[in-house]
Amino acid sequence: MLNKRMEILKQLATEAPTKIVMLVIDGLGGLPDKDGMTELERAFTPNLDEIASRGETGLLEMVDVGITPGSGPGHLALFGYDPVEFTVGRGILEVLGTGGKVSRGDVCARGNFATWGVQDVILDRRAGRIETDKSRELVERLSEAIKEIDGVRITYYPGLEHRFSVVFSGDGLCDCVSDADPQKDGASMRWAEPLSEEGSKMADIVNKFIREARNVLDGEPKANGCLLRGFSGVPDIPHLGELYKIKPLGLASYPMYRGLASLVGMDVLEVENNPIKLIEELQARWDAYDFFYLHVKHGDSRGEDGDTLGKIKVIEEVDKVMPLLMELSPDVLVVTGDHSTPSRMKGHSWHPSPLVLLSPYVRPDGISTFGERDCARGSLGIIPAWKLMGLLLAHGRRLKKFGA
Amino acid sequence: MLNKRMEILKQLATEAPTKIVMLVIDGLGGLPDKDGMTELERAFTPNLDEIASRGETGLLEMVDVGITPGSGPGHLALFGYDPVEFTVGRGILEVLGTGGKVSRGDVCARGNFATWGVQDVILDRRAGRIETDKSRELVERLSEAIKEIDGVRITYYPGLEHRFSVVFSGDGLCDCVSDADPQKDGASMRWAEPLSEEGSKMADIVNKFIREARNVLDGEPKANGCLLRGFSGVPDIPHLGELYKIKPLGLASYPMYRGLASLVGMDVLEVENNPIKLIEELQARWDAYDFFYLHVKHGDSRGEDGDTLGKIKVIEEVDKVMPLLMELSPDVLVVTGDHSTPSRMKGHSWHPSPLVLLSPYVRPDGISTFGERDCARGSLGIIPAWKLMGLLLAHGRRLKKFGA
Repeated sequence: MLNKRMEILKQLATEAPTKIVMLVIDGLGGLPDKDGMTELERAFTPNLDEIASRGETGLLEMVDVGITPGSGPGHLALFGYDPVEFTVGRGILEVLGTGGKVSRGDVCARGNFATWGVQDVILDRRAGRIETDKSRELVERLSEAIKEIDGVRITYYPGLEHRFSVVFSGDGLCDCVSDADPQKDGASMRWAEPLSEEGSKMADIVNKFIREARNVLDGEPKANGCLLRGFSGVPDIPHLGELYKIKPLGLASYPMYRGLASLVGMDVLEVENNPIKLIEELQARWDAYDFFYLHVKHGDSRGEDGDTLGKIKVIEEVDKVMPLLMELSPDVLVVTGDHSTPSRMKGHSWHPSPLVLLSPYVRPDGISTFGERDCARGSLGIIPAWKLMGLLLAHGRRLKKFGA
Repeated sequence: MLNKRMEILKQLATEAPTKIVMLVIDGLGGLPDKDGMTELERAFTPNLDEIASRGETGLLEMVDVGITPGSGPGHLALFGYDPVEFTVGRGILEVLGTGGKVSRGDVCARGNFATWGVQDVILDRRAGRIETDKSRELVERLSEAIKEIDGVRITYYPGLEHRFSVVFSGDGLCDCVSDADPQKDGASMRWAEPLSEEGSKMADIVNKFIREARNVLDGEPKANGCLLRGFSGVPDIPHLGELYKIKPLGLASYPMYRGLASLVGMDVLEVENNPIKLIEELQARWDAYDFFYLHVKHGDSRGEDGDTLGKIKVIEEVDKVMPLLMELSPDVLVVTGDHSTPSRMKGHSWHPSPLVLLSPYVRPDGISTFGERDCARGSLGIIPAWKLMGLLLAHGRRLKKFGA
């Protein structure tokens, strides 16, 4: 099921004593604000600029021209999988990210506690963003009360605030059901519906679950019910280690990114949401792995909040720890994003992600600042993000020659 | 078996009274050395620079991002074939390059004379790089002694130093056998093994051949045995003439490049390894052909030797003959490489090849020096190498409009 390029890379992959670091600032790319500069361009980044001046720069087309990636596709691309061929549901990412176990045939879903009104109108899809502690208590109550439905076992994983996730395990399940979620506040509940014939059992179980949960939570002032969405099973994704003979580690503070990393076969480690801690953990694991994925969440979060200055600060914080990272002397370093999140748009966007790549084998391209428009003039040009992984392996001298 | 682009080009191809010259400096691309410049950037190339200033520049992605091409894939790409779809074994290239004849069903292999020790340990895979004359004598001896094995005819072609090639002709042969070669000195012989069920007869013949050759060569101080590798039959490649209505000629000093050229249907001519001779031969054949592939080998050889100054000299020698070439007034001229060979890496690399293209129909892009980083800023951008051929045909006014 590998495409031609992946097959070739797999055949060419060979071990080498090199260390590759992929530092992902979530939502890195942006758009010029009133002052004519993007967040990255405005940020004071002497260390990243210096790396750019010694490296090669370019842009990553995350999915395809004009397509705005979710975090899943953006990351799959960075990990070397064409996100149009390999898709991953949000439900399973949440479950994996909380350290949950999922087997083939299981179906995962993301849950929200929600405020239900009369006649199944959903008043607040996030139950007033209840506290995480409260949410955990409710998840526990549900897990005591609803252990299975029609022979299908249900496993629960608490999340932050109003969020949780569940895994349905049993025979004849299928992720081909629509979200049980009205999508907006004040609308009538939309129940799960089968998206194909095989989905009818699953839709039935989901809707029964939500009804039962409603009974269990009855009387709660805010979280008197729940919603489920993002139904997804285990995707058939070949692991990075098998493909490329690397031993990869993912370091991320947020569950979903550890989930993505473990889905492609990385060991994962939860780190504090703090670039210094991230580098400290990297230092501590340096000898045990040869590929390191480092994830910095808050570039995206601040962008989504429309907080331009906040996003700039996140980028500057990353820049400050670059000397610590460089002390480890990675053989190959790439700094980029998984998608753009212009704070002016308060959401993900389709704009390519700026990229800087450093190794002993670069042709420094005269770009000496790390910014979207600088990278657009870089010698790497615009490359499909899912091809970056092969380029990193090449720079790590981990690919043999193709053909005689 | 043509892909969509090739099908379209074939449909659009039309004859025209134009001459196209593709000058390939093998291993042209490089990496910056201590002085911060690549071999090409350091070379004094006033003529190529002048051509760049009147032409369009860019980079060729030979196979795909991060993939280091062998000479076969690099050249197939230059000739217009996606090297991921069209693959050619090394054995047949060697045979064709020495002027050998190969028919469908034959299997070719590259041979090395080698020094065998006791218990089939291979002491030296290259038999001390014996002299070419000695090697020829031994090939003759083998060809007298072993004319066939189990009804399979064997044809021999001498090569340079310890190298030779053979063609096996008979029924039921198959190139699906592993190399009969231990790959490193001091290791035990590795015999040919079938890679699929049809390969068992072939593996048997190959191993019998090597045993018999060992008997014939017994007593030779260095070349007392041989190894065979790169088993390959005639690939199914449509010829350039059929595809594009051109009459192509390949001029190269090295056998393999003439082999590649003849595989895609070029007439081929052996030329001295000297750019002036190359141009003289070009002049002599100018009226008889309309597409000319010129190959300069030593850019790669010097790069592989780590000889930066030597590589620079090769490039400068090519530059010196450019005025002679320009006197012929080719309608379309392209100068590029088949892959990069940075002398600092002493081998092929994945870095894109610099490219300059001149015709009356270019948009000169302000790049006035021919170098990797200059070309990276050129208006052609980074194009897949196998698409270059269509661009040359276009500039030669040899493609009709696509669609009404």
